[in-house]
Amino acid sequence: MSPSSVQKERMQPDDIYVLDELGEVIKPGVNPDLVLKLSQCHPLFMAAYIHRNAGAVIHTHSIHAVMIGFLFGSEFRASHLEMIKGVAGLEYTSEMVIPIIENTSQERDLLDSLQNAILKYPKSNAVIVRRHGIYVWGADWQQAKTQCECIDYLMQVCVQMKSLGIPTSLVNNPVNTLSSRIKSDISTVIFDIEGTLCPIDFVHNTLFGYIRNNLEEYTKRTWNEVLTIADRKNIIAQSCILFNI
Amino acid sequence: MSPSSVQKERMQPDDIYVLDELGEVIKPGVNPDLVLKLSQCHPLFMAAYIHRNAGAVIHTHSIHAVMIGFLFGSEFRASHLEMIKGVAGLEYTSEMVIPIIENTSQERDLLDSLQNAILKYPKSNAVIVRRHGIYVWGADWQQAKTQCECIDYLMQVCVQMKSLGIPTSLVNNPVNTLSSRIKSDISTVIFDIEGTLCPIDFVHNTLFGYIRNNLEEYTKRTWNEVLTIADRKNIIAQSCILFNI
Amino acid sequence: MSPSSVQKERMQPDDIYVLDELGEVIKPGVNPDLVLKLSQCHPLFMAAYIHRNAGAVIHTHSIHAVMIGFLFGSEFRASHLEMIKGVAGLEYTSEMVIPIIENTSQERDLLDSLQNAILKYPKSNAVIVRRHGIYVWGADWQQAKTQCECIDYLMQVCVQMKSLGIPTSLVNNPVNTLSSRIKSDISTVIFDIEGTLCPIDFVHNTLFGYIRNNLEEYTKRTWNEVLTIADRKNIIAQSCILFNI
Amino acid sequence: MSPSSVQKERMQPDDIYVLDELGEVIKPGVNPDLVLKLSQCHPLFMAAYIHRNAGAVIHTHSIHAVMIGFLFGSEFRASHLEMIKGVAGLEYTSEMVIPIIENTSQERDLLDSLQNAILKYPKSNAVIVRRHGIYVWGADWQQAKTQCECIDYLMQVCVQMKSLGIPTSLVNNPVNTLSSRIKSDISTVIFDIEGTLCPIDFVHNTLFGYIRNNLEEYTKRTWNEVLTIADRKNIIAQSCILFNI
Repeated sequence: MSPSSVQKERMQPDDIYVLDELGEVIKPGVNPDLVLKLSQCHPLFMAAYIHRNAGAVIHTHSIHAVMIGFLFGSEFRASHLEMIKGVAGLEYTSEMVIPIIENTSQERDLLDSLQNAILKYPKSNAVIVRRHGIYVWGADWQQAKTQCECIDYLMQVCVQMKSLGIPTSLVNNPVNTLSSRIKSDISTVIFDIEGTLCPIDFVHNTLFGYIRNNLEEYTKRTWNEVLTIADRKNIIAQSCILFNI
Repeated sequence: MSPSSVQKERMQPDDIYVLDELGEVIKPGVNPDLVLKLSQCHPLFMAAYIHRNAGAVIHTHSIHAVMIGFLFGSEFRASHLEMIKGVAGLEYTSEMVIPIIENTSQERDLLDSLQNAILKYPKSNAVIVRRHGIYVWGADWQQAKTQCECIDYLMQVCVQMKSLGIPTSLVNNPVNTLSSRIKSDISTVIFDIEGTLCPIDFVHNTLFGYIRNNLEEYTKRTWNEVLTIADRKNIIAQSCILFNI
Repeated sequence: MSPSSVQKERMQPDDIYVLDELGEVIKPGVNPDLVLKLSQCHPLFMAAYIHRNAGAVIHTHSIHAVMIGFLFGSEFRASHLEMIKGVAGLEYTSEMVIPIIENTSQERDLLDSLQNAILKYPKSNAVIVRRHGIYVWGADWQQAKTQCECIDYLMQVCVQMKSLGIPTSLVNNPVNTLSSRIKSDISTVIFDIEGTLCPIDFVHNTLFGYIRNNLEEYTKRTWNEVLTIADRKNIIAQSCILFNI
Repeated sequence: MSPSSVQKERMQPDDIYVLDELGEVIKPGVNPDLVLKLSQCHPLFMAAYIHRNAGAVIHTHSIHAVMIGFLFGSEFRASHLEMIKGVAGLEYTSEMVIPIIENTSQERDLLDSLQNAILKYPKSNAVIVRRHGIYVWGADWQQAKTQCECIDYLMQVCVQMKSLGIPTSLVNNPVNTLSSRIKSDISTVIFDIEGTLCPIDFVHNTLFGYIRNNLEEYTKRTWNEVLTIADRKNIIAQSCILFNI
């Protein structure tokens, strides 16, 4: 396990701590110029080792992970991106779900919520820490590295997708389903006319009329096409925000 | 042909598969530490070899290619960018047209639509796969590499142009021509006043009047200037979106 | 101290000037091909040495620092970002405050305002110069380098946060407190309905009514939650801009 | 002078053409694997040599230069950025003015407009070619390289400034002066209320009234402050766009 506060690009083999399977230090890191201290991430790395049999854990302060923390709530969800096939256990059409936990003042105080996230999301090989970064693990260093690279790429793409208003996941799941979330006294969903392309009268009389006459047929016909799936997800998301669900 | 799932920066010469001209493996890749498998892209690479006589094919998961897939429909079109001269067979004023096909769960299932795109677009040395990446080929590795570099640069520039609302192609072609697309019962094209610079009365009485009196003369006078060409293309594009053509 | 106008990646050990503790040159830089001149930053570097006992000072023209200068006023403030723990003397929940001074035509004329900023902000190990760059120091070159890296990362993240409308600091401090800044004759704070989601009547009668009935209870209940803290800070910031405080 | 169509990172010393001062080839480039051709930029490089006594010319397809071409008209203007001091002959408060010429299908056809720009802008050591890139020169390769680096940095910063609506130049010059450009029958300049912060009645009666009563005093008092200078330049720019001047 790496020591704390050493410039990463100057780390030497002797700087590394060796621990046993219970997390006890067998051989401390030694550096002729520095007093070393074991990384504060120590119990967090051990959590992935104990609960997931991880052979290697990587922790980064990736800016993409920090931005994902601002753009998503308690979960980072993405689907239908080829790179998802690089994430262990997932297919192209799978929904990748990575839990996002809140940061704490001391890194060691992350242990409880990190363990909870690891236990609650047994399919995820990573946990994002909001305003902080990401923990990623794998069976060995090769797998930890490729998982880290794939997930970092996906976070970078999804930040760009979000900034263009493109939904990052096309998978319909219970958490996202309108009927499971709206209050029973809501009977109306309001559709928006984007932009300011023409006089308000034309919008009200002509465009609204056109929509009223054609929406049902159009929606039924294209219900399972990608763009309509995206619209359906957006309507659900906007309704949830509007009604604070 | 490269093996699957090897970290690209650690690939060794012996890892490479050698195939004959029918795509049969002559010499499999061999690695002392890994069980190798031929890349799933194998039939896709062969398609470029068979139909285009490609001497080398490069496949990337370029983030620029993924973003282009979100910003364009079935074709990526660009013109009037110097780097287009770097793409085989094109001049500065040529329109580069690269087909965009839909991704599939299994890479091998891309074969049919990739072959169709290769046959339908004989001038293109690349196919973009939406939510996935790009295939680029050339007569030898040098040409495949320079094609890949030129197209990646053009995709990066065009993502930035799109985000600023700048049309990426100034070439007028049948697919983009309004008259070939609008329905016969549409008799009006609506122009937009951008922004909210002044009271609605001033817009309605003064600005609209000014436009009515001067639009025809201005448009005729500048019909072939770059900015008016861009306006003409934007009007067509907006009309097509508005009337769902 | 480095010489002026030498290409940084070609600098040789002999190019470096050696100065005594009063800033007098002991050994000038010597280069067989160039006439060297001591960096104009000389008195600025000395200011950090004299007032802060700096063992090393780094000056960069980081684009992130230039953009921060356009997005903040006289101080760059950020909190609740893990990387803040890498800045000397700060915790995760600390507010990092780095002074921003105005640039001058001649670098030597920065001396007064740089010294003032150093004295006025004894907790900051950096000064940002608007439209110019940043000065960062530390007890030795290792610390100066890590401070520079941490602050550059934080500037990059905060430029992205600003562009998404996310407040960079969640710490409530006197400078930001509304009651200490508004004029006594202001009795109303106006809340905004964002976007154009529905007819104006619905906004006026239904949404406004909903807000009126629920705002007080909601605000009290969530007063210390992160999102409401962010809202409170935004309201203060917008009020200050609106009333030119 | 470099040959055409060689991968730049694989160029060898023998690939380089040697020309005399009239532009005649003394020693052609020689490559064992390729048939070389002198770069099409040849007469363009000679133009900088003849008219400016350039010892070295660099031509790039910098994406920043391409984006600047979309964001500016016939000149790229910037001031009050420290890096401007790195451009030969300029101070911090100088306005850097780099001409932008239109691209042509064949690089050799750029010669006339490039020469015109070189003669018309004797203070500029660079010419931007829209939708193409930039030519930069200097007395020797060191100066050409540092000019290229400084200008590329400034183009990158100014693209970001433009995207945030920040004016890139604060210098008031004849070309930008309203009085020298507006038609004599324009008697009114319209100010905008940004955003949608409050009911239209409040805007119309209260905010407009406040502006009417205070604008003159405020403008006079802050006439020479940076923010008001920026406002004045923005008003001029918007008026010019509005009235097509």
